[in-house]
Amino acid sequence: MACNLPISEIYRAAQALRDVARHPRLIGVTNLSDSAQVYLKPENLQYTGSFKLRGAYYKISQLSDQEKARGVIACSAGNHAQGVALGATHNGIKSVICLPAGAPLSKVEATKKLGAEVVLVPGVYDDAYQRALELQKEKGYTLVHPFDDPKVIAGQGTIGLEILDEMPNVEAVIVPIGGGGLISGVAMAIKELRPEVKVYGVQSAGAPSMEESVKGGHIKRLEQVSTIADGIAVKEPGVNTFDLVNRYVDDIVTVTDDETAAAILTLIERQKLIAEGAGAVSVAAAMFNKLPIEGKRVVSLVSGGNIDVNFLNRIISRGLAKTGRAVTLTIDLDDKPGQLSGVCGVVGELGGNIISVVHDRIDPVAHVNGCSLRIELETRNAEHIQEIKDGLTQKGYRVR
Amino acid sequence: MACNLPISEIYRAAQALRDVARHPRLIGVTNLSDSAQVYLKPENLQYTGSFKLRGAYYKISQLSDQEKARGVIACSAGNHAQGVALGATHNGIKSVICLPAGAPLSKVEATKKLGAEVVLVPGVYDDAYQRALELQKEKGYTLVHPFDDPKVIAGQGTIGLEILDEMPNVEAVIVPIGGGGLISGVAMAIKELRPEVKVYGVQSAGAPSMEESVKGGHIKRLEQVSTIADGIAVKEPGVNTFDLVNRYVDDIVTVTDDETAAAILTLIERQKLIAEGAGAVSVAAAMFNKLPIEGKRVVSLVSGGNIDVNFLNRIISRGLAKTGRAVTLTIDLDDKPGQLSGVCGVVGELGGNIISVVHDRIDPVAHVNGCSLRIELETRNAEHIQEIKDGLTQKGYRVR
Repeated sequence: MACNLPISEIYRAAQALRDVARHPRLIGVTNLSDSAQVYLKPENLQYTGSFKLRGAYYKISQLSDQEKARGVIACSAGNHAQGVALGATHNGIKSVICLPAGAPLSKVEATKKLGAEVVLVPGVYDDAYQRALELQKEKGYTLVHPFDDPKVIAGQGTIGLEILDEMPNVEAVIVPIGGGGLISGVAMAIKELRPEVKVYGVQSAGAPSMEESVKGGHIKRLEQVSTIADGIAVKEPGVNTFDLVNRYVDDIVTVTDDETAAAILTLIERQKLIAEGAGAVSVAAAMFNKLPIEGKRVVSLVSGGNIDVNFLNRIISRGLAKTGRAVTLTIDLDDKPGQLSGVCGVVGELGGNIISVVHDRIDPVAHVNGCSLRIELETRNAEHIQEIKDGLTQKGYRVR
Repeated sequence: MACNLPISEIYRAAQALRDVARHPRLIGVTNLSDSAQVYLKPENLQYTGSFKLRGAYYKISQLSDQEKARGVIACSAGNHAQGVALGATHNGIKSVICLPAGAPLSKVEATKKLGAEVVLVPGVYDDAYQRALELQKEKGYTLVHPFDDPKVIAGQGTIGLEILDEMPNVEAVIVPIGGGGLISGVAMAIKELRPEVKVYGVQSAGAPSMEESVKGGHIKRLEQVSTIADGIAVKEPGVNTFDLVNRYVDDIVTVTDDETAAAILTLIERQKLIAEGAGAVSVAAAMFNKLPIEGKRVVSLVSGGNIDVNFLNRIISRGLAKTGRAVTLTIDLDDKPGQLSGVCGVVGELGGNIISVVHDRIDPVAHVNGCSLRIELETRNAEHIQEIKDGLTQKGYRVR
């Protein structure tokens, strides 16, 4: 089925969003990729922390007065919920958001604060979605689809116009794909105006529904998806988005969770920006050379930054361990006084910073008259870790 | 001593910096303060991750050809080093940066990558500074002072012009103070042009050198400083900056480390921005109502984002514990099979996510025939923690 979306609709959306959306400038990134000049389009700095406001706002602004009077409904535990809530509030109308009852409290609170009525539905996402459909019928609400709606797509497409406006000499744009709403709009805007600019999509290797659908030539539903990029963990592309991606997108690649985590950490350290997993896949694709962008001026669209801080903490911890800035050592000790202090002395002298200590006398791997010591350290790099290990070994401690 | 700095110098600096510095837009913050409308001036998004590039670049650009031919030198383990390195490289001249030998490797590498020659000096900051003075004499380098130089101050002042440009109806500007270079330039630019706009300075409670100097009426040197905001841990204000702060700044307040940490976490969660301690004190001052800004349109200058990720991890951990999103429980168990699995079952059913477990049979506080279990959990909030504690108690486990 061909999606009926004229480019004029994206211009209309840009007008509607003029004073509603933020327009943070492109940010140049040094040393991200050896071969390309990468700029970020930071939609993580958008209101609600993601691009979703654009499509939701535009969709809602185009409803009839009668539809507006009845209000809108959506089902989401994530960025779409907040986009619809703020979009409705900006348009001065009522919004109802169905969320699975186990949704993170922070997201529930954020959605309420943006003016939505939140309905917590026992069960998982699908249950919440069913309830949204029921309420839609009962109350006459308009359902705002998270991606498969031409008006929503037009709203997201305004990002494409902004990129061309700000960087007329852009050569490629890299866009995350979940359901495909974002890339459909962006690719259409760019290709209709500047067909020579490449548009690439990125999916998570654990949720490649659009990639497999496009390569297979028909819409495919994945049995399950698993990725740290929860914002793009979508099992099945939309009918409209599948059509637009086929028409306008040059290629789709995937990135792993580890690559995504590395991109998140890099954005934190080098750019001082927080991206969520879904937002960072476009950066990971450039970092890990997944695309033919050598020597090109490229925009990576960072779609959002709503990441749970618990999770962020884990990403940082993993990144620290990977880059030698944290390590856990297990040391076999003789079970006699002074041993722990001896180890700590060596570590301290060499500039290691002990975070935690577990001293275990019944570790079955240790000698019968020995014990094991597990210490967690902050370190400078891999060489520093080796230096500490060597220092301990020289003093007679057995590092496992 | 009166600082000789005409406002025209700040305009000249703005011209010089036009194509060198980034000009990220002001970012409105919702719900940061109950009483004020707060916008961020995000200099953490500046090249090198802080405003320091501005002053260093402008200072260097104004050197004579002879001085340029000899090159510049600076002493810093932080943002100033990177600012001088990039400023010199942009001006096409040589830079030498003296760093104490124990400086974080990441900062050494970053400074080198920006084109500087790095001299690692055994000892602490003061030793590195002495070495810089020696090298200056030996080689004829020009020393770029981190704050107490009218040209450096003029460069930082360009931020004041940008704020007035972008938000003509601003009513107050809040600026971090270390040595005072940033606030001197910003306050001069703003007060010379719009005397009715308030300019407030913020110091760390552990390093209030400018505050005490201004309130005491003369420059005061603190014996020691201690703060998580290392970028503003300065023992003594400059002669020029002391004069300008006296002339142009309305008031100086201090914030605690806990307040600063809370501001860092808030910027991460709500704004998707990484600020360093020094960069966040201006946000902390607004968050914790340190200033008479009720109902006002206020700009908080976030001066930088160069925070060690090890440290960031600790800030997040502390913030999570404070807001009930992580907890460590110690439980007394009978030492018999099935106990650990029982506890984990209760926690899992109630939606707690176990991160670590320490099972200790020789805990002296536990019963002789018992043992203690220490579990670290990810939780939703304080109520969720209570729910889990109650669930454990109901099943007969003794939560300490």
